[in-house]
Amino acid sequence: MDRPMRLGIAGLGTVGASLARLIASNKDAYALRAGRPIELVAVTARDRSKDRGVDLSGVQWFDDPVALASHAEIDLFVELVGGAEGAAFDSVKAALNRGLPVVTANKALLAHHGVQLAKLAQRKGTTIFFEAAAAGGIPIIKTMREGLRGNKVSRVYGILNGTCNYMLTRMEREGIAFDDCLKDAQRLGYAEADPTFDIGGFDAAHKLALLTSLAFGCEIDLDSIFIEGIAAVTTEDIEAAADLGYRIKLLAVAQRTESGIEQRVHPTMIPAYSALAQVDGVTNAVAVDTDLLGSILLVGPGAGGSATASAVLSDVLDAARGVSMPAFGLEPASLAPYKRARMRAHEGGYYIRLSVLDRVGAFASIARRMAENEISLESIVQRKRDGAGERDAAPVILITHETTEAAVRKALDAVSKDGHLKSEPRMVRIEALD
Amino acid sequence: MDRPMRLGIAGLGTVGASLARLIASNKDAYALRAGRPIELVAVTARDRSKDRGVDLSGVQWFDDPVALASHAEIDLFVELVGGAEGAAFDSVKAALNRGLPVVTANKALLAHHGVQLAKLAQRKGTTIFFEAAAAGGIPIIKTMREGLRGNKVSRVYGILNGTCNYMLTRMEREGIAFDDCLKDAQRLGYAEADPTFDIGGFDAAHKLALLTSLAFGCEIDLDSIFIEGIAAVTTEDIEAAADLGYRIKLLAVAQRTESGIEQRVHPTMIPAYSALAQVDGVTNAVAVDTDLLGSILLVGPGAGGSATASAVLSDVLDAARGVSMPAFGLEPASLAPYKRARMRAHEGGYYIRLSVLDRVGAFASIARRMAENEISLESIVQRKRDGAGERDAAPVILITHETTEAAVRKALDAVSKDGHLKSEPRMVRIEALD
Repeated sequence: MDRPMRLGIAGLGTVGASLARLIASNKDAYALRAGRPIELVAVTARDRSKDRGVDLSGVQWFDDPVALASHAEIDLFVELVGGAEGAAFDSVKAALNRGLPVVTANKALLAHHGVQLAKLAQRKGTTIFFEAAAAGGIPIIKTMREGLRGNKVSRVYGILNGTCNYMLTRMEREGIAFDDCLKDAQRLGYAEADPTFDIGGFDAAHKLALLTSLAFGCEIDLDSIFIEGIAAVTTEDIEAAADLGYRIKLLAVAQRTESGIEQRVHPTMIPAYSALAQVDGVTNAVAVDTDLLGSILLVGPGAGGSATASAVLSDVLDAARGVSMPAFGLEPASLAPYKRARMRAHEGGYYIRLSVLDRVGAFASIARRMAENEISLESIVQRKRDGAGERDAAPVILITHETTEAAVRKALDAVSKDGHLKSEPRMVRIEALD
Repeated sequence: MDRPMRLGIAGLGTVGASLARLIASNKDAYALRAGRPIELVAVTARDRSKDRGVDLSGVQWFDDPVALASHAEIDLFVELVGGAEGAAFDSVKAALNRGLPVVTANKALLAHHGVQLAKLAQRKGTTIFFEAAAAGGIPIIKTMREGLRGNKVSRVYGILNGTCNYMLTRMEREGIAFDDCLKDAQRLGYAEADPTFDIGGFDAAHKLALLTSLAFGCEIDLDSIFIEGIAAVTTEDIEAAADLGYRIKLLAVAQRTESGIEQRVHPTMIPAYSALAQVDGVTNAVAVDTDLLGSILLVGPGAGGSATASAVLSDVLDAARGVSMPAFGLEPASLAPYKRARMRAHEGGYYIRLSVLDRVGAFASIARRMAENEISLESIVQRKRDGAGERDAAPVILITHETTEAAVRKALDAVSKDGHLKSEPRMVRIEALD
């Protein structure tokens, strides 16, 4: 068996502590799987005295991640500090500059600086691994970088945020309104005190940015992602979707189109009978459409200390086996520039919910606006009036055939201006899964 | 960029020809992904003159796979001949003996000789890759060997045979009887003229044997697998399952139990709302339960030339990147002997369908036999009488709580001997998915 691989871990939070415990308690098993012993020799953490359920007395403590990455006698640097800048960025650069392979779970770091770090790794003849940075315990990075390498990807999409999926699942099952559901999720620890990063769709967007690069061999472009969170989703929409044979999920989608690559995160209606629609609670899922395979779907835990540790361990053991791979599948110089497809050019079906005032000609006027924008309708449902406040208005649901985002926005603007609506129109994009 | 990787392909059937075409038409893309050009330099095939949609004029032809594997100037040998013995076995051994890495799609070869070949590969300092040997285009081998390497697996299970799943899906959707469905599947090319290997469960068992070794770090033991095919599944069972909230799938399951590792392939009832139950037609799916992850599920195409080629390509490009990995995750000497758990010790719920003669006391007698074997019942449904031939008997469905295979077999033997049944009792195992 080869000489041990000496590990330095920066950050002993939930994931780091879990990793340290696993390495200590599975010494023999991991040595067999790695082909050599894995030894934790150096760490950093804010609090040295905290009980992390593992004996760290023989391990060297460093004051900060950069010092560890720069000076520790290690063969692999594991960055679990978090954040796109500061200690995380600086320590990863320091480790790569020494030619050390790096394992990180840091989606923000990679979404902002991934290509730059991949270039640095290549110049230094080493590798940066990041299985844990997207979809937690689902091995989607390895699958896309290695397993689907013979394929040409046309679309990658999935449920990448557990908080949103948990909330949408409960809103659907229990008919709870968004605000109440959020309070409950916060109480139970499924949502942060400031939930914006999750429910606003930003977390999913960071993960999508990485998958886009792997899928299409292009540079990362987080800023080009169209993002719409779940805060405006109502139980009325969820119920209406169910009546029509759909469920609403926050999907993150990257798709090759004629004008470029679309990247978008938004509440999405998908067929209720699809496997993806059965993905409930905090579970994540990623689907990839390719030329050779048609579609594959991976479902699993998206977060949590042990699921994330599982992903980090897969990278650690790859590094121990000497696996060396460009971070995004291609040498960074070969990544194509990201060519953005505008959201207004997006093509798809749309769900539209209108609260239509009880007036002669209102519906004819709405139908005309749709026709003017060349939107043809697959179904029209007048729903029962759902509240006391809606006595003078009737909810009308339209499902469009494939049309464009621009046409829908224009039509809805015109309908709003015509003055037949009691409240702002609601719109949810429909994703075709086959 | 490194020097080219020279490829020899033995066997230019559907998969081999598809692979040759892909390598020719994606030259630049694959060179970027592999970090070096991939060149097809040698082939074998029975018919040299057949048009395979690719120019093979610059390629060296060999008379047989062993000659190619022994003498061609190649860096990688791809075995697509098929069969557990003969040319496939001999050529793979010849290539490994030269120290060449081998890529194969041959489940029979590996299920019978996998450990022996892994040992030979290790002795010669090379690797045998077999992503295409189980679940076709789903990257389950890589996922288990590398992606889940930090985990302890408790169960791996899935839908591994497309023919069976296609037939069960059609029987369910269209209410067609097994024999008619089989004829139709044969006519449409979804089932072979001799369908035994598929519908008898043997194909799924071969694939399961490989997954068991990867999951539990043990030697392969194809002969210990309990196998029951789908030929006895009736539309009555499928309908009764649906009424009770289940669907019937041919599952292959390997599971760690107290007495050893269970390996079994049989028709199985799973909850209708589960993601696995949505896997229809020729699609395959594999789920893995582990300590760190809970569960992950992979769904995708299980067969077909291009899906299989996708898996072969993933191995080819890994080999080109210099990835070197023990075939079954551990050095073959470290694989534990397979410790078989007997099927009679299997624990789970059971669906039992009895055609009970219209006699006083019949039901009481059945209930007593269940109680004698300590089988408690979760539900009892007396179904409507389903045919003219059944006028003197009533179909009774029992769903048991968790019990053992031995208890159920004993109880059903006793019930049969009591003479209250019009026909043989039917039994379908229920798999708990959470």
